Amino acid sequence: MKEKLVLDPDRFFDPNPKVRKIARELYESVKNVPIVSPHGHVDPKLFAYPDISFGNPTELIIIPDHYLYRMLYSQGISLESLGIPTLDNKINIETDKNENSIIHKYNSTIKGELEDKNEIKERVEEDPKKIWQIFAENFYLFRGTPSSIWLNYEFSEVFGIKYKLTKETAMEIYDEINEKLKLPEFKPRNMFDKFKIEVLATTDEATSTLKYHRAIKSSNWNRRIIPTFRPDAVISIQSKNWRKNIEELSRISEIDIVDYRTFIKALKKRIEFFKSLGATSIDIAVLDPYTEELSEIAVDNIFASALKNTVNENDSKKFTAHILMEMAKISIEYSLVMQLHCGCYRNHNQEIYQKFGPDKGCDIPVRIEFTENLKALLNKYGNNPNFTIVVFTLDESTYSRELAPLAGHYPALKLGPPWWFHDSINGMIRFREQITETAGLYNTTGFVDDTRAFLSIPARHDLARRIDSNWLAGLVARHIIDITDAREMIKDCAYGLAKKTYKF
Amino acid sequence: MKEKLVLDPDRFFDPNPKVRKIARELYESVKNVPIVSPHGHVDPKLFAYPDISFGNPTELIIIPDHYLYRMLYSQGISLESLGIPTLDNKINIETDKNENSIIHKYNSTIKGELEDKNEIKERVEEDPKKIWQIFAENFYLFRGTPSSIWLNYEFSEVFGIKYKLTKETAMEIYDEINEKLKLPEFKPRNMFDKFKIEVLATTDEATSTLKYHRAIKSSNWNRRIIPTFRPDAVISIQSKNWRKNIEELSRISEIDIVDYRTFIKALKKRIEFFKSLGATSIDIAVLDPYTEELSEIAVDNIFASALKNTVNENDSKKFTAHILMEMAKISIEYSLVMQLHCGCYRNHNQEIYQKFGPDKGCDIPVRIEFTENLKALLNKYGNNPNFTIVVFTLDESTYSRELAPLAGHYPALKLGPPWWFHDSINGMIRFREQITETAGLYNTTGFVDDTRAFLSIPARHDLARRIDSNWLAGLVARHIIDITDAREMIKDCAYGLAKKTYKF
Amino acid sequence: MKEKLVLDPDRFFDPNPKVRKIARELYESVKNVPIVSPHGHVDPKLFAYPDISFGNPTELIIIPDHYLYRMLYSQGISLESLGIPTLDNKINIETDKNENSIIHKYNSTIKGELEDKNEIKERVEEDPKKIWQIFAENFYLFRGTPSSIWLNYEFSEVFGIKYKLTKETAMEIYDEINEKLKLPEFKPRNMFDKFKIEVLATTDEATSTLKYHRAIKSSNWNRRIIPTFRPDAVISIQSKNWRKNIEELSRISEIDIVDYRTFIKALKKRIEFFKSLGATSIDIAVLDPYTEELSEIAVDNIFASALKNTVNENDSKKFTAHILMEMAKISIEYSLVMQLHCGCYRNHNQEIYQKFGPDKGCDIPVRIEFTENLKALLNKYGNNPNFTIVVFTLDESTYSRELAPLAGHYPALKLGPPWWFHDSINGMIRFREQITETAGLYNTTGFVDDTRAFLSIPARHDLARRIDSNWLAGLVARHIIDITDAREMIKDCAYGLAKKTYKF
Repeated sequence: MKEKLVLDPDRFFDPNPKVRKIARELYESVKNVPIVSPHGHVDPKLFAYPDISFGNPTELIIIPDHYLYRMLYSQGISLESLGIPTLDNKINIETDKNENSIIHKYNSTIKGELEDKNEIKERVEEDPKKIWQIFAENFYLFRGTPSSIWLNYEFSEVFGIKYKLTKETAMEIYDEINEKLKLPEFKPRNMFDKFKIEVLATTDEATSTLKYHRAIKSSNWNRRIIPTFRPDAVISIQSKNWRKNIEELSRISEIDIVDYRTFIKALKKRIEFFKSLGATSIDIAVLDPYTEELSEIAVDNIFASALKNTVNENDSKKFTAHILMEMAKISIEYSLVMQLHCGCYRNHNQEIYQKFGPDKGCDIPVRIEFTENLKALLNKYGNNPNFTIVVFTLDESTYSRELAPLAGHYPALKLGPPWWFHDSINGMIRFREQITETAGLYNTTGFVDDTRAFLSIPARHDLARRIDSNWLAGLVARHIIDITDAREMIKDCAYGLAKKTYKF
Repeated sequence: MKEKLVLDPDRFFDPNPKVRKIARELYESVKNVPIVSPHGHVDPKLFAYPDISFGNPTELIIIPDHYLYRMLYSQGISLESLGIPTLDNKINIETDKNENSIIHKYNSTIKGELEDKNEIKERVEEDPKKIWQIFAENFYLFRGTPSSIWLNYEFSEVFGIKYKLTKETAMEIYDEINEKLKLPEFKPRNMFDKFKIEVLATTDEATSTLKYHRAIKSSNWNRRIIPTFRPDAVISIQSKNWRKNIEELSRISEIDIVDYRTFIKALKKRIEFFKSLGATSIDIAVLDPYTEELSEIAVDNIFASALKNTVNENDSKKFTAHILMEMAKISIEYSLVMQLHCGCYRNHNQEIYQKFGPDKGCDIPVRIEFTENLKALLNKYGNNPNFTIVVFTLDESTYSRELAPLAGHYPALKLGPPWWFHDSINGMIRFREQITETAGLYNTTGFVDDTRAFLSIPARHDLARRIDSNWLAGLVARHIIDITDAREMIKDCAYGLAKKTYKF
Repeated sequence: MKEKLVLDPDRFFDPNPKVRKIARELYESVKNVPIVSPHGHVDPKLFAYPDISFGNPTELIIIPDHYLYRMLYSQGISLESLGIPTLDNKINIETDKNENSIIHKYNSTIKGELEDKNEIKERVEEDPKKIWQIFAENFYLFRGTPSSIWLNYEFSEVFGIKYKLTKETAMEIYDEINEKLKLPEFKPRNMFDKFKIEVLATTDEATSTLKYHRAIKSSNWNRRIIPTFRPDAVISIQSKNWRKNIEELSRISEIDIVDYRTFIKALKKRIEFFKSLGATSIDIAVLDPYTEELSEIAVDNIFASALKNTVNENDSKKFTAHILMEMAKISIEYSLVMQLHCGCYRNHNQEIYQKFGPDKGCDIPVRIEFTENLKALLNKYGNNPNFTIVVFTLDESTYSRELAPLAGHYPALKLGPPWWFHDSINGMIRFREQITETAGLYNTTGFVDDTRAFLSIPARHDLARRIDSNWLAGLVARHIIDITDAREMIKDCAYGLAKKTYKF
């Protein structure tokens, strides 16, 4: 039996009729405003050439989305059976300009050939339909999660699918999406316009050539897709690839990095290049937001040790603390917004990391502290009217205790919306309820989708707009604010705050 | 004036009519499904012989329940006045097979006889009616707490009491319960059937003879009451009774424990015995879930020190970390579920502990960390399809930050429901709202009552089923899931998940 | 266009009609009960003489309220432009008995005169109307915050203002309030009666002469305004002013403080003086509630070092830990309630602190731990029936994990209501929902306003009574408690618990 897939027009609103009526009005007022996406991980290549397409449904929806396969994995379904490429046998994802699609060249390992290592490697599944079938049969696992909300939106609103994804409907839905993906209107550039995206920021290595951003810029397709400067790989002095990354930075910046001073010079040269392609922000991810300003000699010594590969953990921690100060200074110098993503222990599951590499759903948050850790940075730059730092956390216990009081005081500090695991209905409600009363609405940044999955962007913004509409409707129904205020606030939530914060 | 005690059929449901209607439907579908109780502390002796009875209302309801007397104590009512036995003057709780009841032999201390110690000891109250009267007069203290919900259920549904327990009704209700407890249908075995319990797991010391489990098994009463292997007393190498416990373990296992290897051998022999009586799980309580695998030599050295009584705190901590790894390995070997209860500082109030012993309501939770602490264990065993570890926490800040992301990735990890202080209406709501969006429903275990109070079992399951029904109804009313999904999910919450997780 | 300012009679109640109806009934039953204000920071001088008045609207409402100007500052509005006095150019706030008003004598710095220090100092704004205009234009920043709720209550209920405060209405509202403040019924003493305040406790330095309390007592105005003994300045042995404070304590107590023993003697003499003016409690603020009893010799040695200015940080920490034990002992000796305010990192923004001094909106909470830290104190005094300790926290993650279990056991421990940033609608809801099920209602203290802003007192109590009424109504509508219970509980929330806890 096939069950209808229906997106209720009042979905996610409070069932109370008073609240629902107000929520509906507020939502209607913003549902069609353009999308501002100031931070995310969409591949700019998708828009670099007019005829690029998305591949098949499995390549488009499952393979790149660790939100999806981590859940399947947690229930005992192997990543290999879901087609996730292993490192020693990587599926090549290439753009074949002639075929105009992203093709996965599967080159599977034959069971047994690794038996001399005394382990039997599972074959990476090559058949996208088989993978889709497994996904469909286990789609019930996502009940009540944001993934099911986003996917059902994509299925219904983007692809016009009429039935729920189940074991029975799997192939029918696969075929329907697959056919549509071949149509012109489903090319990335056309989707970009259909989604009414005003600006889309990508995230790019400090050493990136920004080849695709340049291609977009030099085409006659005048849309705003801009890079974000992410220097993590060149500032993590204790990671094993760091010196290779520094060599690459030397090469691409044409500055010979021999000490801290030349390192910063190279970073700045790259930042200028990023700015020339429209960048308005930088982004740094740290486990721990500890900040401290070192003396020039001290930081130079640590940098020299790192170049000689003799840096210790404590020095590495101090270097990160100093680099955060430095990046704040640079952000001011170049009028860039500084983003800080904190508190994620990366690659917690070593077996998965060694087999499949990073970003495979095994990054796990840790407890985090902001009040003492950010003190040095906020004391030096937090009162500066030319500085904006946007902080994202995965530790919700810091919302009401640390972040809201800090943002309700320091002019430079703005709070990014619920991030990653917390970009969900309850996550958004908790954020609003734990932040607003102390920090106000106007020290937050508005919604940030932070996704790799381009197709999920309208779904994510739609969800955020609905939840914010409903939140404000609840305030109106309880007479905490009035409807006039709410009408302005929803516009700021959906559009105004992100645009203002990120200097678009 | 006597006030009616009425359990509303819609109790605990959202007052919104849409939500309430759906909640009612979902609840109706599970209210009579059998009870699966995979972890708790009911005394198996109750079921060992057909004619055992429960004693008087005070012995049955107040004396064994630290949830109740801790609250009275917090308001200045002494434990002595509530009949709680002191250690130096212990009330003997014995089964007198002739009388077929559990009798408290009060042997009170005479005021004054301890005056040479310069303290006046309060007399332990012997009169169950006086104790009941104090309890009734202070029953208002439990307003809004789960204890009042459970007790009112017991009063109304189990004993047919028609009035609220107050100062005025105290004796009348005491007498009514006391009379009923003498009736055949109020014998434990008959209650077991009346409550529709499909399986009941007890918690038993590693050194237990499981005498009562054997008695149940050898009787012709074919109900499933199974032990759980709890090795805490024999693995806490720094506790003062440890060596005595090891001697006991040697004796009962008939294995001479002279080193770590023989220790593990003895544990395994005991586990085999527990399995022969139906055990499907082990359970360990630790303050801190730190895990680390030690070398054979290192663990053997620590064990040798412990036997010589020269172990230090750091080694003790490392031993616990290693034992958790060992217990995971053993769980896999014996196809047992491993349960981990974390984060409770036991016997915080030394005065109470020294006078009355453990489990007197003065165990207080502490902050806890899982991401780094469980890394060693999850890296070694968390990907193993034959391993299941169920984690319980008292630190709710770990729900969305650590536990949900971990359970949403590692196949072996399942999350136990809100435990102890959090086994309450708001506790359950917070758990669902902070866990589900990241971990999904299917990485949780379903409800676990974890009670010593046999009579409260149906009350606790009824409450959990109502709260889950209402939670799902809220999701349906907001169109986050549909009613078809909700109908399946409520069955999993009430029955399916516990049965599957605990391998029943 | 001027928008009406309307306070809905059902404001802050759940929109569900069942809940709202019950909330309304409960609220009606307590809306007019007298106000008990057991802890706050109102200036007793306001009531010392019959004809004192409040000054102009800016002096009354904006200048003293760091809740307000911190939010404006966070959006880039300088404190100078809001008239906040700088330390090097302090606005004198004096009571001019002839004029009978509190006058700010502005004496602004001329721009440029500090240019030799290579900084241009901003002029502190002197014109109260200009300040009020800035405030009005930015009043939208407080949407959804408790400040807007309190202020709108003051505007509407106290001053009879009919329109929302906006850019357009700013001057009209300023003038209206300014005129009213000149009327006799707007004198502090008349407001005190209008607000139906039964008792108001202020907070006073250990070295205070309590001049204004004496003036109140010796007048024929028989109202209960009592001091609270706050010894922070004389027990913080590492602060730079400590020795000066000790000299002051010596002087005022007429006890020569030469060692720890004489220090305690002086404290006790002062406490006796405070008691003679009605004090029923002491109050201590600590970053960290660590408690430990030192030996007499140890504490005496640390005190001696402090007098010689050679105390180190570790000793200072130990001294605080010991002083908490000492203050508990003294509280018992003098039948005083001991209040503990924990976990605020003071003066986080050094630039603001150095320019403007303390209490300027840059105090930021930190993570806090109670279970282990309070163990020594609770083990020694927590079972004592003559001891009451009221704990306040800014770390909400401790509510369900540590504070509720502790308060649900130790007779001496009561939980203060949501404090500071958490004295808000959601803050109060979280407190009730995370505390009650474990600690019960009766281990909490009832509402404490803790404000410097006298005019906000009725607004704050009104909000708390509404939120508690609504919370209880929700419990009734879900049949967790019945209406009879709720009617008693709301009276305890609004009046009974505070009166009982603080021994009024």
